[in-house]
Amino acid sequence: MKTQVAIIGGGPSGLLLAQLLHTRGIDSVVLERKTKDYVLSRIRAGVLEQGLIKLMQEAGCATRLHAEGIPHDGTLISYGDEMFRIDFTEHTGTPVMVYGQTEVTRDLYEAREKTGGKIEFNVEDVVIHGADTDTPHVYYTVDGTAHRLDCDFVAGCDGFHGVSRQTIPLDVRKEYEKIYPFGWLGILSETPPVNHELIYANSPRGFALCSMRNENLSRYYIQCSLSDKPEDWTDEAFWQELKRRIPADQAANLVTGPSIEKSIAPLRSFVTEPMRWGRLFLCGDAAHIVPPTGAKGLNTAASDVHYLYNGLRDFYENNSTEGIDTYSQKALARVWKAERFSWWFSSLMHTYPDQSEFDLKMQVAEIEFLRSNKAAQKSMAENYIGLPY
Amino acid sequence: MKTQVAIIGGGPSGLLLAQLLHTRGIDSVVLERKTKDYVLSRIRAGVLEQGLIKLMQEAGCATRLHAEGIPHDGTLISYGDEMFRIDFTEHTGTPVMVYGQTEVTRDLYEAREKTGGKIEFNVEDVVIHGADTDTPHVYYTVDGTAHRLDCDFVAGCDGFHGVSRQTIPLDVRKEYEKIYPFGWLGILSETPPVNHELIYANSPRGFALCSMRNENLSRYYIQCSLSDKPEDWTDEAFWQELKRRIPADQAANLVTGPSIEKSIAPLRSFVTEPMRWGRLFLCGDAAHIVPPTGAKGLNTAASDVHYLYNGLRDFYENNSTEGIDTYSQKALARVWKAERFSWWFSSLMHTYPDQSEFDLKMQVAEIEFLRSNKAAQKSMAENYIGLPY
Repeated sequence: MKTQVAIIGGGPSGLLLAQLLHTRGIDSVVLERKTKDYVLSRIRAGVLEQGLIKLMQEAGCATRLHAEGIPHDGTLISYGDEMFRIDFTEHTGTPVMVYGQTEVTRDLYEAREKTGGKIEFNVEDVVIHGADTDTPHVYYTVDGTAHRLDCDFVAGCDGFHGVSRQTIPLDVRKEYEKIYPFGWLGILSETPPVNHELIYANSPRGFALCSMRNENLSRYYIQCSLSDKPEDWTDEAFWQELKRRIPADQAANLVTGPSIEKSIAPLRSFVTEPMRWGRLFLCGDAAHIVPPTGAKGLNTAASDVHYLYNGLRDFYENNSTEGIDTYSQKALARVWKAERFSWWFSSLMHTYPDQSEFDLKMQVAEIEFLRSNKAAQKSMAENYIGLPY
Repeated sequence: MKTQVAIIGGGPSGLLLAQLLHTRGIDSVVLERKTKDYVLSRIRAGVLEQGLIKLMQEAGCATRLHAEGIPHDGTLISYGDEMFRIDFTEHTGTPVMVYGQTEVTRDLYEAREKTGGKIEFNVEDVVIHGADTDTPHVYYTVDGTAHRLDCDFVAGCDGFHGVSRQTIPLDVRKEYEKIYPFGWLGILSETPPVNHELIYANSPRGFALCSMRNENLSRYYIQCSLSDKPEDWTDEAFWQELKRRIPADQAANLVTGPSIEKSIAPLRSFVTEPMRWGRLFLCGDAAHIVPPTGAKGLNTAASDVHYLYNGLRDFYENNSTEGIDTYSQKALARVWKAERFSWWFSSLMHTYPDQSEFDLKMQVAEIEFLRSNKAAQKSMAENYIGLPY
């Protein structure tokens, strides 16, 4: 088989890139390790920056997003029983959109199918060959049958554990990592959200996040120990702990109910440099991971897709390699800013096992400074709604 | 002897308080452990916030400060060979004033002498009695002769190692501390400053600060090991190391010369709570220490003096204890903000022995964010010129 762009990974980055390329008549094949149902069963973040929304529009996939997404003009930050608001629209003129990553992926799949774009599921044993030549090709198997896909370029959208990053030789690749000494225990429940905006809660018992997917689907998280397992936490224990970490007046309004999903995720900051090796380009989690505080994971993947899509357009439409030659540099410049914000916001909101009493005081002082200083709020809001591409 | 306010410590906080009280006819006696010459030989910071300048005016001690001080409308921040400027006047409408702490102290001594205010030098064996009663009194000796000073209030302006803080019982007092794993090696030299503004320099070799007292007196610092001693560093070695830590174009302009002072200071963040016990009030270094990055030491002492002076005025003029009753709370609210800023700016600019490569990347990302984001610059400028009292 032959295509222009081989896209490894059928998550939102790979599909968004595929559909954007499709609008310019650039052919691609998406190779996905799992099934569509599996991909759509993954619960992920749900706060979209305008940059991602514009890309979805450009890809022709934003109709449902605009109909069902909930614009959020601000967010709430609490510490103990104190709470204040950061107004995105006041500081930046721009809201964010609450719309689940799963729904983004679903919309992209629907568009992919409607436009007849190729996706191979259950793809195993992917090997990328010749990425450092002008004739890259990808070997893979499906149901035991070997295939070869010849292409001009390979887009590595296959996540942190994918083969794409591993294809870049170690002497070229430099990795940066921070592991946080805690995880997030998250539940999804068919209950109305405790507040119509998100609450990021700092408490002496640890961080909590009150989030949502829609008016009858809530997503809550609490900071937990890395040794915890979801089955250690009954729904009742989760709700009790959550109530202790958010302001009392919010806890009093919390509607609880059975969880329909419960899972623990570790928190990691990770960046690999460069994000390009020859004709192989890394996008999204394949190149970088942020801790979820601040919802930068999907949004940063989208900015990679933006730079790569424009680079590939430039190549096919203008016969220029400038866009792809500068892809890694441009993508990384924005990645490091998102990494900084996610690291800062995580550091601000969580309790750390090695925190001294002075460190705890600094955390509260920083939160109170954010509460009292308009410039600090504006800086936070600009990061939260997404720095310019 | 009897007075209204016994002031322990003849540094700038104690003298400023004494002179402010004098303007309202409130009597005080200053007890200083050393001689005036010793106090005036101590080299300290040299960047004054407007709040301190206004207090000096109110105390009638600002004539020379206004004549000889150098207003600075901004500061420079460098990392490697990159450098950018934060414009205080653009962001806040307010400059800072470069004028040595030694000169502030000299002006205060002159005013003290002119107004016939009492200062006892070479005071030893200070003991504060009855601070938790309505009749506090201070015992001390001078040249082996014992004295007793009866007073209404005691102002503890005797620095980190003074007796005032130690007078507050341990079960009342709570201390917060962070020791930084490096020191500052500073030299004073009769050379023109390398730049007409301060340069705060982050470099892979460690922090450096290019500062000044006047157009022919420069003050430079480099981050050094805590085990270093001033005599380990020849002038030549100092200048060479400084040049490596600042941008090449600045290093090329650096005029070197013999040091006229060379010393190493450790960096510490420290706060004691509360800052009041009965009729004893702590001011300045007696209650809190900041690392010198950002020049908040003297300026934060001045805000304590402001709150205490106003509280004592309220007591003597309006027979109200509200000002002194809320002294600790008001002073600490601003202290913690200055602590946060000094800690943040120190964390941003120094190299740390336990820094991972990811941490180093976060530091550069934060500096580049500050370089590129106006709101972050405004927030930094507001802190640097001094948050409102």
